[in-house]
Amino acid sequence: MTKAVCLMSGGMDSTTAAYLAREQGYEIVGLHVTYGQRTEGKEKQCARTIARLLPAREFLEVDIGYLRILGGSTLTDQQRVIADYDPQREELPDTYVPFRNANLLSIATSAAEAKGAEAIFIGAQAHDYSGYPDCRPAFLEAFQEVINRGTRDTTSITLHAPFVHMTKAGILKIGIGLGVPYEHTWSCYRNEGLACGRCGSCHFRTEAFREIGVRDPLSYEEIP
Amino acid sequence: MTKAVCLMSGGMDSTTAAYLAREQGYEIVGLHVTYGQRTEGKEKQCARTIARLLPAREFLEVDIGYLRILGGSTLTDQQRVIADYDPQREELPDTYVPFRNANLLSIATSAAEAKGAEAIFIGAQAHDYSGYPDCRPAFLEAFQEVINRGTRDTTSITLHAPFVHMTKAGILKIGIGLGVPYEHTWSCYRNEGLACGRCGSCHFRTEAFREIGVRDPLSYEEIP
Repeated sequence: MTKAVCLMSGGMDSTTAAYLAREQGYEIVGLHVTYGQRTEGKEKQCARTIARLLPAREFLEVDIGYLRILGGSTLTDQQRVIADYDPQREELPDTYVPFRNANLLSIATSAAEAKGAEAIFIGAQAHDYSGYPDCRPAFLEAFQEVINRGTRDTTSITLHAPFVHMTKAGILKIGIGLGVPYEHTWSCYRNEGLACGRCGSCHFRTEAFREIGVRDPLSYEEIP
Repeated sequence: MTKAVCLMSGGMDSTTAAYLAREQGYEIVGLHVTYGQRTEGKEKQCARTIARLLPAREFLEVDIGYLRILGGSTLTDQQRVIADYDPQREELPDTYVPFRNANLLSIATSAAEAKGAEAIFIGAQAHDYSGYPDCRPAFLEAFQEVINRGTRDTTSITLHAPFVHMTKAGILKIGIGLGVPYEHTWSCYRNEGLACGRCGSCHFRTEAFREIGVRDPLSYEEIP
């Protein structure tokens, strides 16, 4: 069986991507990366549960707390406030963690090359989110080139970002079809107990469930 | 003053690159990355000393011990033996750490974007070393593209690899001209006390000093 390294944050998109990889016949090497974000405890718990349920052949946990130390994001800075979702907002949200996905993909590629995996799955999607530059298709295409040139000539690793052109509702539809247990996924940027219902991430999650007419199994502080 | 993030391993090439960045008028943000390699204690000590001497405006230390856990290299695996330098060897040396430089450059880019630096310096050089894929010019060019596409549209970061087409002797000549204190750099893959004189890294270092007719300030277990 061919192995795939699946980046598993504990959120909806990456969980769905891991189930899709399983459906496509890959043996899953789950990779969860901690970078000092606020809701990490809950996210890791979700990723571990999903790895057990898939089941993944192996589950790797990597800590890159340096991203918090380097700063530059409200997501990793407990002193700063996470803004409510604002549909009028045009600039990049301050939850952007500088170049985060390149860090994640580098780790995933090192893991894939060390363990002989031929694929990497990432749940990145460019549509709903407000333009994180490291979620864009063009970024992911460039990263594939970096993988091709920066690994052994005998190594062949394909980067799969199956949802990069899809909406969150579209991803959710696929996941429902695959039987993804969304009760074991987490999206809220703010809380680890009850989801807040007001941050950008809760906004897009609840909107996706509403759009496809399925009940979100999570509970919210405030009904969005 | 414009800031440059300089990757500083404690070795000859990256130290020379940092002195070159200083010469070109940059304010230095030094970045030392630990990844569980054998001689890390000595390398970090050298990098710290160089940061103090430059002097760097800031010196960041980042731990990515996960590379050791992922495995795949004799450089990070204490159970395996580092081979002596062998001029006949054609395949990639087993000191290759899978995709290491992409991990280092991702961290450097996150740091540069978070801190408003416009340049990154890496001491990579393709000539002497036996074909580490993540030291090749084509890899570095592809990484520049990833930086352009994966950071904010308002961010502009140029990746400088000034020595990528040079030999180690050529780099050393430049460094001697810039007054680089090579007594505070470390190259040996095996030891932290006396350099072994027999591993690939000692081989290329001592050969470079010999070629330009300058005495290497380090002492060796075995005169190479």
